[in-house]
Amino acid sequence: MQPIGMQNLCYYARQFAGINDDKINILRQVYPDVSERLQEVTDTFYARLQEIPKTHPFLEGRIDTLKKTHVAWLHELFTSDFGVDYTSKLYHVGDVHVKVKLPVEFMAGAMTLIQGELARIFGETYRNDQDKLIKAIQALNAAAGFSLLIMQESYQSSSMAEELEKFLRITGMSRVLFNNLAKAYR
Amino acid sequence: MQPIGMQNLCYYARQFAGINDDKINILRQVYPDVSERLQEVTDTFYARLQEIPKTHPFLEGRIDTLKKTHVAWLHELFTSDFGVDYTSKLYHVGDVHVKVKLPVEFMAGAMTLIQGELARIFGETYRNDQDKLIKAIQALNAAAGFSLLIMQESYQSSSMAEELEKFLRITGMSRVLFNNLAKAYR
Repeated sequence: MQPIGMQNLCYYARQFAGINDDKINILRQVYPDVSERLQEVTDTFYARLQEIPKTHPFLEGRIDTLKKTHVAWLHELFTSDFGVDYTSKLYHVGDVHVKVKLPVEFMAGAMTLIQGELARIFGETYRNDQDKLIKAIQALNAAAGFSLLIMQESYQSSSMAEELEKFLRITGMSRVLFNNLAKAYR
Repeated sequence: MQPIGMQNLCYYARQFAGINDDKINILRQVYPDVSERLQEVTDTFYARLQEIPKTHPFLEGRIDTLKKTHVAWLHELFTSDFGVDYTSKLYHVGDVHVKVKLPVEFMAGAMTLIQGELARIFGETYRNDQDKLIKAIQALNAAAGFSLLIMQESYQSSSMAEELEKFLRITGMSRVLFNNLAKAYR
């Protein structure tokens, strides 16, 4: 996707997920209070995944590496500006998920796991400050929603592109011929 | 999808989203406390969507009908057993979303909006009961995650099937010929 497309996607995802400067500030305020517990979220996350047989082929022999990427991303979730760079990065992650043939539902499932764990940790952290608790939960929900939305956009467009590749390979048809037929069809 | 496939999908989505009997009971306990405010969630949801230009073609002239379906589903979210019937229903919704050409990211965006609004309402409802507040938020997160996961599974498989249809139409190739080529290719 071109830079201009990425800017539009960023703006659109911000609007849809409701992430804005207020929520970004809240995440940054919350960050020092939970930063040391993010490794625990990642550990619980992969422990939970390991209970689900369908995830095993994606985890075997790679857990340590995956955990490093995952916890780094959790830190980013609290500190990002949710701008074009973060959008491009997440867009790329969606593409990679198609390339490694990660099932589409893993992304939504993962966000659910993470939001559930962080709700628990926020509850412990802000036991005596319910306003902050609700604000933290809403800000995280928006940040996770933004990230999921971007990844799914790129997952969808990458998997459509892969499907075309597959069709061309199977039929032995050239891309030029297919494109010409597609033009004529419209 | 066959009934056995639906049963497996239900089990898998339950595991991934972490919805279980405890959480289902919590949602049912919370339900009478928030039931009268679900219309407010639906109204806010569609008001927010109307601020996003890309949603307009899907809303024009249909808002009242959509709101009825939406609020009925919100009630179900608090009362469902998250069993095979609910799974089949959500699976069908994912299919329908492909047929009406709803962009994939609308589903994740919608869940983000709904979870954000309900977090606010739970915060007001359980102002003096933080344990219940956290439990309600976690149970809703699991219920919404389950629903999103099922819809996205069917959205993905329906959109792949539609993509193949499109190739066949554009190229004029028969399904039999394509299937034979695909077999030979493997």
